[in-house]
Amino acid sequence: MTDKKFWSEKIRGQTPYTAGEQPKIADLVKLNTNENPYPPSPKVIQAIRKSENGDLRLYPPVINESNRFWGNGSDEVLAMAFIAFFSGKRLYAPDVTYSFYPVWAKMFDVDYHTIPLNEDFTIPVEKFCRFDGGIIIANPNAPTGLLLGVNEIERIVATNSENVVIIDEAYIDFANEPGASDLLDKYPNLLVVKTASKSYSLAGLRVGWAEGNESLIEALTVARDSINSYTLDRLAVAGIKAAFGDREYFKTQNEKVIATRERTKDILRQLGFGVTDSQANFVFAAHPKFRGEDLYKSLRKRGILVRWWNLPRINNHLRITIGTDEQMNRLFAALREEIIGGN
Amino acid sequence: MTDKKFWSEKIRGQTPYTAGEQPKIADLVKLNTNENPYPPSPKVIQAIRKSENGDLRLYPPVINESNRFWGNGSDEVLAMAFIAFFSGKRLYAPDVTYSFYPVWAKMFDVDYHTIPLNEDFTIPVEKFCRFDGGIIIANPNAPTGLLLGVNEIERIVATNSENVVIIDEAYIDFANEPGASDLLDKYPNLLVVKTASKSYSLAGLRVGWAEGNESLIEALTVARDSINSYTLDRLAVAGIKAAFGDREYFKTQNEKVIATRERTKDILRQLGFGVTDSQANFVFAAHPKFRGEDLYKSLRKRGILVRWWNLPRINNHLRITIGTDEQMNRLFAALREEIIGGN
Repeated sequence: MTDKKFWSEKIRGQTPYTAGEQPKIADLVKLNTNENPYPPSPKVIQAIRKSENGDLRLYPPVINESNRFWGNGSDEVLAMAFIAFFSGKRLYAPDVTYSFYPVWAKMFDVDYHTIPLNEDFTIPVEKFCRFDGGIIIANPNAPTGLLLGVNEIERIVATNSENVVIIDEAYIDFANEPGASDLLDKYPNLLVVKTASKSYSLAGLRVGWAEGNESLIEALTVARDSINSYTLDRLAVAGIKAAFGDREYFKTQNEKVIATRERTKDILRQLGFGVTDSQANFVFAAHPKFRGEDLYKSLRKRGILVRWWNLPRINNHLRITIGTDEQMNRLFAALREEIIGGN
Repeated sequence: MTDKKFWSEKIRGQTPYTAGEQPKIADLVKLNTNENPYPPSPKVIQAIRKSENGDLRLYPPVINESNRFWGNGSDEVLAMAFIAFFSGKRLYAPDVTYSFYPVWAKMFDVDYHTIPLNEDFTIPVEKFCRFDGGIIIANPNAPTGLLLGVNEIERIVATNSENVVIIDEAYIDFANEPGASDLLDKYPNLLVVKTASKSYSLAGLRVGWAEGNESLIEALTVARDSINSYTLDRLAVAGIKAAFGDREYFKTQNEKVIATRERTKDILRQLGFGVTDSQANFVFAAHPKFRGEDLYKSLRKRGILVRWWNLPRINNHLRITIGTDEQMNRLFAALREEIIGGN
């Protein structure tokens, strides 16, 4: 038992977010943290190589854009948003969503309320059309993968014009519809948050951003500059610029992930799984005859790591990141043995 | 005037830290942000080149060390320490010190009190030997550059055994005495914070760390994992490992900076400046006949950027980062013209 004598009350009361594990197991099929199975654009590598000379001795350049805020992954961006817009206020989120939201809420004194998803995990749009607090929705939602159409997002944002509505679009580039960025000119209370970790294959570089009205971006900047002024290092700045510049690579690669995702849904359904219509780079699946925990453990023994949570409503589900076709074939083979062998 | 309608009270009340400017002026002699004038070890570059392959698609490795906490620059480490140890509590700091301390205090609900430095900017050790709150001391202090000996640090840490004492050693590698790390085994309330930004020439890579008792490190980890789990990207992790591995380069380079600093003190004194006995990679100087603000502006016109603050007690002083000998020669020439020409 740790001696917490020197800990502040704030930290004693805090249960931190638990990220998916990053084990060092040889030949592991790692489908647990929604990383992209393909490497980033070669132009990213070139840009990093070019920038990594003596410039590293200098602080990173400060990027000031009036409608975009850059951060060390979208987690940092979201943390700053919780401080900047929701600290001391009420915030609504779906009951099943990204599990970092309640952690930030506790950390930054946000009065966090959840609204239950429908039985099929879709978002009850009517219940989010309220005006007594901020709203955060991951879209596509995690870990369900389900997408809310931009018209429904607009209804929520328009209803709640006195509070900030955050749409967390970490997975939007894998969806079959555009995200909420097109609404930004119309709604000063809308903040759209994105990341380079998934669709740009840059989880290891730590880059995320928010798009929104100038006043929202300024508030985020005040929050960041009250904690740590330079959170994107020089190599990350160089890397993300190059990644943005290679649309062709971005498009081709994401299409590969999407194709594999669709194939994965089909095969899992053939194996008897109930599978949501995920629009993200993962699938969310439960089998009527096998417990999620058992499948998770069996797969782990076979060197395949997926994500399972012991949480209400979803403790029978697995969240499976889309890997390469070869990795997914290993998963399918393992599941066939478990499920057909187990019947 | 920005519309702050959506801003939380917390952020409305916050005045962020102002970092030294990073202007893009050709041929500028940049002596304003205490960056190292020499590039990092070539081994850092090699390590970054080696690591920058497809691994960037994966989240960074989590570094768990029981007595060391890694962060995105020492600013992140210090911010986490303010939350973890001082939130809701009292904290004492010198009145003249790193100007981020009061910003973090406000941000994280710390009851921040200052203790005036002596007339000559030395730390009044007796006044810091108290036990009614935490203590933070930059050592060498900024912007004075003055070093407190390890025995005096020990008196303060030993007196205040019920509260955390942070020694912020951003500049310790330029000092003529060792830092407080040797005291760590003896005092569980001591946290020593360091950075790769100055003595490792890696301001652009964003790496800092804290050394301390296991319980303190765990509290910092809870704080970080309640905000952003991975703040060091893969390239930063690779780079700092390589930098730590090249002690020879580290030593040689810092000796060059120290030699230039001593020469700078001599020449400034010859020009009539009062100069503190800085043990950092900057000097802190005031001229009896010239206002700090005027000198700052004159130097800026000549393409030489130093730091000046319009703050009580130090508004006649300049903080001048130690550059290469060539850069300092340009500074000396400019000052000679200003001071001898101005007499």
